[in-house]
Amino acid sequence: MLKKEYLMVPGPTTVPERVLQAMQRPVINHRGKQYETMFSTITAKLQRLFNTRHEVLTFPAAGTGSMEAAVVNLLSPGDKVLAVSIGVFGDRFGQIAAKFDAVVEKLEFPWGTAAAAEKLQERLKADQRHEIKAILITHNETSTGVTNDIKALAEARGNHPALLVIDAVSSLGAIELRMDEWGIDAVITGSQKALMIPPGLAFLAMNDRAWAAYEASAMPKFYWDAGDAKKALAKGQNPYTPPVSLLFGLEEALTLIEEEGIDNIIKRHCLLAKALRAGLKALGLELLAEDAVASTGVTAVYKPAGIETKDIQKIMRERFGITLAGGQKQLEGRIFRIGHLGYVAVTDILVTVAALEITLTELGIDVALGTGVSAVQWAIIKEQCWQ
Amino acid sequence: MLKKEYLMVPGPTTVPERVLQAMQRPVINHRGKQYETMFSTITAKLQRLFNTRHEVLTFPAAGTGSMEAAVVNLLSPGDKVLAVSIGVFGDRFGQIAAKFDAVVEKLEFPWGTAAAAEKLQERLKADQRHEIKAILITHNETSTGVTNDIKALAEARGNHPALLVIDAVSSLGAIELRMDEWGIDAVITGSQKALMIPPGLAFLAMNDRAWAAYEASAMPKFYWDAGDAKKALAKGQNPYTPPVSLLFGLEEALTLIEEEGIDNIIKRHCLLAKALRAGLKALGLELLAEDAVASTGVTAVYKPAGIETKDIQKIMRERFGITLAGGQKQLEGRIFRIGHLGYVAVTDILVTVAALEITLTELGIDVALGTGVSAVQWAIIKEQCWQ
Repeated sequence: MLKKEYLMVPGPTTVPERVLQAMQRPVINHRGKQYETMFSTITAKLQRLFNTRHEVLTFPAAGTGSMEAAVVNLLSPGDKVLAVSIGVFGDRFGQIAAKFDAVVEKLEFPWGTAAAAEKLQERLKADQRHEIKAILITHNETSTGVTNDIKALAEARGNHPALLVIDAVSSLGAIELRMDEWGIDAVITGSQKALMIPPGLAFLAMNDRAWAAYEASAMPKFYWDAGDAKKALAKGQNPYTPPVSLLFGLEEALTLIEEEGIDNIIKRHCLLAKALRAGLKALGLELLAEDAVASTGVTAVYKPAGIETKDIQKIMRERFGITLAGGQKQLEGRIFRIGHLGYVAVTDILVTVAALEITLTELGIDVALGTGVSAVQWAIIKEQCWQ
Repeated sequence: MLKKEYLMVPGPTTVPERVLQAMQRPVINHRGKQYETMFSTITAKLQRLFNTRHEVLTFPAAGTGSMEAAVVNLLSPGDKVLAVSIGVFGDRFGQIAAKFDAVVEKLEFPWGTAAAAEKLQERLKADQRHEIKAILITHNETSTGVTNDIKALAEARGNHPALLVIDAVSSLGAIELRMDEWGIDAVITGSQKALMIPPGLAFLAMNDRAWAAYEASAMPKFYWDAGDAKKALAKGQNPYTPPVSLLFGLEEALTLIEEEGIDNIIKRHCLLAKALRAGLKALGLELLAEDAVASTGVTAVYKPAGIETKDIQKIMRERFGITLAGGQKQLEGRIFRIGHLGYVAVTDILVTVAALEITLTELGIDVALGTGVSAVQWAIIKEQCWQ
């Protein structure tokens, strides 16, 4: 049966039609005036989105590339690093640092919970000789659907000189993040999440403290060299050939973001998550994250007993065209995840919950059809945040 | 708030992405070999869709153009015509014939009902001198959401020599119509309904009896001259410049139709209508057409007392991006219409009913949220017609 595509995974996310159209423009010379003007405009818009006055560097790469870029530009082999982890991506950040011979200490929290600011404060207080050079933290942990309170964690750092490095791959553009105001030293993100363009671009912003660390960094780097990228950016260029079509898309996506307004976008994600969570709970489903720490971009749901997550995903995809994500690592087979990041409207939440009710019914789970949907509807009505 | 577009009107309908992409190809010479090959392929596919071995002629025009084409090619001034009408488009067919000095007799049925075959049979039996030269019938009456039983009406004609001319603008490609098998003499349709391409193309197919009538026809015609179109078609061409981009789209749309299979498409529309009607009834809404004659492409719904149809349309459009149609002529302000024709999936029905429940609630109508959606869900589950 004919179906439409609903890409309800936490990235890559749905690309708006206007962005797809922009990407169809003929490729231009990346060393010419036209590109330079466009790239400079893009960078200015990215700075507004990062809430920073510092350069935002653009690399042709997956999001993970920006994690590696942060590590190799800010650290030296032997540097002690505190990797705060609440899931897969927190772990990965630490792994990358370890690969480049940083001495990684993990500050772990149970999956499904957020990092506790007091634990970070405690650990840093104990580090009286200031051995810890950097703190790596995931803003939004995609694997568990939990958002860390970066403002509180930044405050917990206090006067400790460690660099605060934030992985904002699945948050920037959807969840509030104020780089300069909160004293974050480096922020990284990718293109395929809240930025609403296809995968292929990674971003790194560094403040003055981070640039000072760059000067002292002895880790080997060529492709990720932030100094080279900064030099090229001053001329409106990139060190190595950029994916020009993705930049066309990014320019349009950033225009869309400014048209809607970042504050409105943050509120919209909040409504999407609230409405979805209300619907899922009304169906008796158990959510991995507590409301207080729940991500507004992705929701992790425990599968009901007696059925398989892959069967839920299969029916949702094959019958309704709705793609959901499974669990990762220790959560594989135990949860499924619903992405609601970027170009997502309340109608997408309504249709996802309505289709999920049918899917659970088909799998023999006793669900009162319409119950989840009505909770979503009530949440939409109560929010009253229409513009 | 960000919203996606749901064009739930009975035409123009949503154009699939693949069709939009096909339309972006560079325009080609309409007198060249490439066009001739494409146009011949398109015509062969149209013949399969019309269920006819006769030529299907393509005119650059709105659907109403094909109605005029049928009239001026088949009739002469002074010819007596029986215009069977169950709504706006049945009336229009008769008006066009009258404008060209046919003597139009209307066989009318109350809006919301279908044409009764026995009434047609009765009228033709009374026409012992065979004065009636043509019977004009709308297959699917878009203004009321009623489908006429063309097979039964064709049988009711019996041996009367009047031409049977069917307006299939909002049916062909969604609702079964078998031109040759049912003995229909001429069929017309447009591009912007079940054919899933933008407005701009009109089609006319004529059998041997119709071509004989064409030879005798004395109505003035130049642009709509079927003989000229037939001659050009033999060379894979059109008499006058065709909208080449729409033809690119049509070629892709007909490919999509053959991929899904017309039988499956007809079944899908049946499910969409059944599910929608179940949902609307569960909300206590009154439908204009009885189930037995209800269109599977458009559903007309009486507004609840105390609210305005334009307010329903406004909230649906502004909050959810869902465009509904209002009523026409005597039904204006009394009904709203939901189109589910062409590129429509069950998820579109789920989201429409879910949003309608919120809309009615916002307008102060006492609606148990989720009630309509659950009826839609049950209909989807019960149909079991997944492929």
